[in-house]
Amino acid sequence: MNFSSKILEESVKALSTLPGVGKKSALRLALHLVQDKTLKAAKLSAALNRLGSDIKQCKTCCNISDHDVCDLCLTQNRNKYVLCVVESARDVMAIEDTNQFNGKYHVLGGVISPLDGIGPADLSISLLVDRIYAENIEEVIMAISPTIEGETTIYYISKLLTDMNVKVSIIARGVAFGGDLEYADELTLGRSIVSRLPYNVQF
Amino acid sequence: MNFSSKILEESVKALSTLPGVGKKSALRLALHLVQDKTLKAAKLSAALNRLGSDIKQCKTCCNISDHDVCDLCLTQNRNKYVLCVVESARDVMAIEDTNQFNGKYHVLGGVISPLDGIGPADLSISLLVDRIYAENIEEVIMAISPTIEGETTIYYISKLLTDMNVKVSIIARGVAFGGDLEYADELTLGRSIVSRLPYNVQF
Repeated sequence: MNFSSKILEESVKALSTLPGVGKKSALRLALHLVQDKTLKAAKLSAALNRLGSDIKQCKTCCNISDHDVCDLCLTQNRNKYVLCVVESARDVMAIEDTNQFNGKYHVLGGVISPLDGIGPADLSISLLVDRIYAENIEEVIMAISPTIEGETTIYYISKLLTDMNVKVSIIARGVAFGGDLEYADELTLGRSIVSRLPYNVQF
Repeated sequence: MNFSSKILEESVKALSTLPGVGKKSALRLALHLVQDKTLKAAKLSAALNRLGSDIKQCKTCCNISDHDVCDLCLTQNRNKYVLCVVESARDVMAIEDTNQFNGKYHVLGGVISPLDGIGPADLSISLLVDRIYAENIEEVIMAISPTIEGETTIYYISKLLTDMNVKVSIIARGVAFGGDLEYADELTLGRSIVSRLPYNVQF
């Protein structure tokens, strides 16, 4: 591409390092910002600058936070004896959006994936074990994606917790609401039949 | 969405003002930047800051430039008597990428579009007329999209130039290379038959 401006070229290069943004999309975004008259570029720059320098990881649950300990860990309104173990901060947000969970969280920071060189030591698993001891946790809910790596992680953590006085549960797997049975994959459909529930169960 | 961090929320808000970036994509991008360990957020922030404050418009051709006059206007290696009139800086880049044009450019900054409230006065048309006088331009090539607004703009400018000693041409319209005739729209195909060329034409 023939850029008439070095500044534009650098912005396109920086924007195209974002996931899912190619050279052409990056150019479109940069030109949009150049032509914008509402200081959008300056605002975005300031926000990203703070994102890069001021965001912290909560010391208790490893969630993204503005302070040393996040609001979810500090609040007194939640059941502090139930921990929901998730992969990432995104999953905390997804579960919070459901309004169905009132306990605390623990963010692993990924799943065990030997192919990507991620072992148990790279995740906050030892911190989780410490928390279960220190905070007298009664139940650990594994809200981890049912992929091969996710299942491995669930298996690894539940093995670690067998000798501890804590209940380990996993979120239900089955056909999605609004989904057509015809299009559900065999494994999911098969598991949903094996793990069938009595119909008068409380949702 | 339940954000655990105000800083993250602000970044997501700023990112989602970009064209084609919704709330969910913005969140994905922001979380990517948070988790990145190569200072990507700081680099992007710095690049966008310069984009917002340091980019200028070339005083001669209205192209995007780092200086008061852009490199394309300053160079002595190009035919300064042929002007290619385009809508935007993006079009200059597209034509430069073809390596088929060796003249100078003039960027209108849009097309006449009464529905969007864009009239001739909002575009750099008077500057174009001044340039044609001042620089003794011999040919003006209209490289403007063949849309209704584009055609209106071409008509308006060519009307303005009728009394001036300048040749006005438009880029060829017809079926695209690699395109299937079957899928070409009727107007394009019809026009390509009307504007047919003798076969031994030089490409």
